[in-house]
Amino acid sequence: MRRHMLYLSLLLTPGIVLATPKNIIYMIGDGMGPAYLSAYRYFNDDKTTSEVENTIFDALWQGMASTYPDDDTYVTDSAAGATALATGFKSYNGAISVNRQHIPIGTMMQLAKKLGKANGILASSQINHATPASFLAHNKSRRNYDEIADMYLDYRIDGKPVADVMIGGGTKYFVREDRNLVNEFKQLGYQYTDDYTQLDSITTAPAMMLLAETALPAKLNSGFDAMLAPLTEKALQLLTPAKKGFVLMVEGSQIDWCGHDNDIACAMAEMDDFAKAIAVAKAYVDKHPDTLLVITADHETGGMSLGAAGEYQWLPDVVRKVKATGRSIAEQLQQAKSDTEALALWRTLTSISLTEEEQATLLATRQQDETKLRKLSNQLVAKYSYTGWTTGGHTAIDVAVLAYGKDAKAFAGFQDNTDIAKKLMQYIQQTK
Amino acid sequence: MRRHMLYLSLLLTPGIVLATPKNIIYMIGDGMGPAYLSAYRYFNDDKTTSEVENTIFDALWQGMASTYPDDDTYVTDSAAGATALATGFKSYNGAISVNRQHIPIGTMMQLAKKLGKANGILASSQINHATPASFLAHNKSRRNYDEIADMYLDYRIDGKPVADVMIGGGTKYFVREDRNLVNEFKQLGYQYTDDYTQLDSITTAPAMMLLAETALPAKLNSGFDAMLAPLTEKALQLLTPAKKGFVLMVEGSQIDWCGHDNDIACAMAEMDDFAKAIAVAKAYVDKHPDTLLVITADHETGGMSLGAAGEYQWLPDVVRKVKATGRSIAEQLQQAKSDTEALALWRTLTSISLTEEEQATLLATRQQDETKLRKLSNQLVAKYSYTGWTTGGHTAIDVAVLAYGKDAKAFAGFQDNTDIAKKLMQYIQQTK
Ligand SMILES: [Zn+2]
Ligand SMILES: [Zn+2]
Repeated sequence: MRRHMLYLSLLLTPGIVLATPKNIIYMIGDGMGPAYLSAYRYFNDDKTTSEVENTIFDALWQGMASTYPDDDTYVTDSAAGATALATGFKSYNGAISVNRQHIPIGTMMQLAKKLGKANGILASSQINHATPASFLAHNKSRRNYDEIADMYLDYRIDGKPVADVMIGGGTKYFVREDRNLVNEFKQLGYQYTDDYTQLDSITTAPAMMLLAETALPAKLNSGFDAMLAPLTEKALQLLTPAKKGFVLMVEGSQIDWCGHDNDIACAMAEMDDFAKAIAVAKAYVDKHPDTLLVITADHETGGMSLGAAGEYQWLPDVVRKVKATGRSIAEQLQQAKSDTEALALWRTLTSISLTEEEQATLLATRQQDETKLRKLSNQLVAKYSYTGWTTGGHTAIDVAVLAYGKDAKAFAGFQDNTDIAKKLMQYIQQTK
Repeated sequence: MRRHMLYLSLLLTPGIVLATPKNIIYMIGDGMGPAYLSAYRYFNDDKTTSEVENTIFDALWQGMASTYPDDDTYVTDSAAGATALATGFKSYNGAISVNRQHIPIGTMMQLAKKLGKANGILASSQINHATPASFLAHNKSRRNYDEIADMYLDYRIDGKPVADVMIGGGTKYFVREDRNLVNEFKQLGYQYTDDYTQLDSITTAPAMMLLAETALPAKLNSGFDAMLAPLTEKALQLLTPAKKGFVLMVEGSQIDWCGHDNDIACAMAEMDDFAKAIAVAKAYVDKHPDTLLVITADHETGGMSLGAAGEYQWLPDVVRKVKATGRSIAEQLQQAKSDTEALALWRTLTSISLTEEEQATLLATRQQDETKLRKLSNQLVAKYSYTGWTTGGHTAIDVAVLAYGKDAKAFAGFQDNTDIAKKLMQYIQQTK
């Protein structure tokens, strides 16, 4: 199988002179379509000033990218999207860095490792979820979580696993009855913790931090001011000593999940968490100018828009007052001991005054399954904030490409998602 | 009133050195949000190749712009959007280049005229519709069509009207019982025709062509291969002799109207017409390198997305087979002599095979008003193509900024819509 492996690097034209960054920080907002960036700007707007303040996304905006997969649907999933972003090749929906014939496609982290760079992955999902998986593993299906986790350890370059730093969730897949990958990583010299409060105990790469059974908590429910930002700081600290530089992939994994739920409050909280992680990365570039920061999305989720039902307004104030995700609101309402308690809880959690008819529907739906109640809760927040959604899935619209630092201008204008990976792999190939 | 007129030019920092273009072609796709550009790419995709071909929009993409108006809604209308794009100042929804106190704000075309440049406007709407109006007139309300038309003639700079070339629809407003503005323009030396086949009779500026009572026909219903492109060619031909250069505004006015109707086939036809006009402008820049072409939108309309109902696909093939706008389909179905004829007509016009239930609904709705039937027709096309829509109004999401020619890179990255006007007015101010 390895014999047939496709490597983009073989296709690159030799002799191209580039302003080659030593370090690459590659941040992927899963599902972060362009409307999410507009929404976050207005969500963050300081109403006491007449200007709308620019966000860190606005400051770094360079271009746009198409995201279509290698089939006739035009709409990609996260696996095909991440495969394109990690390898420079498009594939079918569900593919983890394999092509249609299931032949593995070499990833930029495998290339980086071969050339002596260090690699890091950081995700707010389990670390073997589609996006990080496409940088480290190959599988015909994103759903083969155990096989993908195994490959994080078993796929070796010069005898070593591809990733030097892995941070996110996933003990369910890495500490299994049939195999304890965490112990095997420890035997290879990886420092390890599963405790968010013990990050200081991790002092050098290689290292692994699995901070949840599957995904990290949703930002809005977490009580944290910032979740990804301190983890980004930690990953950068561990990777900085790498002599030949590093490639760090940071995924804001759950923006997409909020989009699937059509949950605007959840989405804005995840965007805020991602923005704070970007700020950490940007500050790193300012201190280490030999670094390139690239930020994009694998696709848009939900068909989000700011405006609905013919009204010419969007009300971020309504969104800002929502204190929990639709999932959490539904769970809490179902646990309430009475209808009165449920309605009081709704007001506390959302600050939205429902009509009597809406209250009755909410209480009736409380008797049904959590999914229906979550959906209703999210629909009510959407209605009162004039947020529009068209689907519980993904859409085909182009995504933003942001960049900062060394050679950032190379990402200006319109490009395909594979072009982003091709450019990054060209830099990696120039490793000295 | 004129005493208080705000002029952006007064606010510009003197001494800025610019690569100043002599001519400016400013094209505005009304309602053309970023999803319209993605959609048009896939709509145009040649399925016999594995690559998706880039469009002319993709080739010229430079940046993005925010569009919020000067109030708390975040969602602009076309009047406030055009005021920002024509003057560099934000105002309230409905404003035609006046501020909240109804004080006129100087427009870039007024500035250009003062400095000896020629001006042209071209729109597929009536020429006194909100977008062109904001370049030539001032009014507290976009709805005062007659007052706005009067101002096209009565507002003088050095004794002359602001626009040298006006092309679009609008005889209803320019040939009225109380006043015949066309005759008055003729007396000032304007060549005139209201006949699309007589464009060759118009040989020099100043000139006016009013080719319809209100708007030009929708592209999809028109039978024309290109409507705006030959008119763009004509406008450029008439403006080229201007010694100090020109400012030409070309609006793809009806992209927005398709968006309001949530009519994807209508929208793609208008995008195609606009793209062909852009190709004419781009070719002009290639021959006249002292020209800057800037293309943007005033806002997004409809909350369009490519993906709906949880399905991971968008089907441009379905859209391509639709032969008329929802409005026209509804009218034709209502004129059919029998249900059988109506269903046959539906199949001819859309190539969509409806379920029996959908057929029954279509026939029942045929007995109701045209608006309901149009809505149903557009919903069915959306359903079968997996096009999503969230509103019959506008949304607050950012729009694309494309540029080509002299100093095009000045429009790269994220900016506010007022920044676009500010940059263009800086160039105009450098007129020699
Ligand atoms: Zn997703
Ligand atoms: Zn409109």
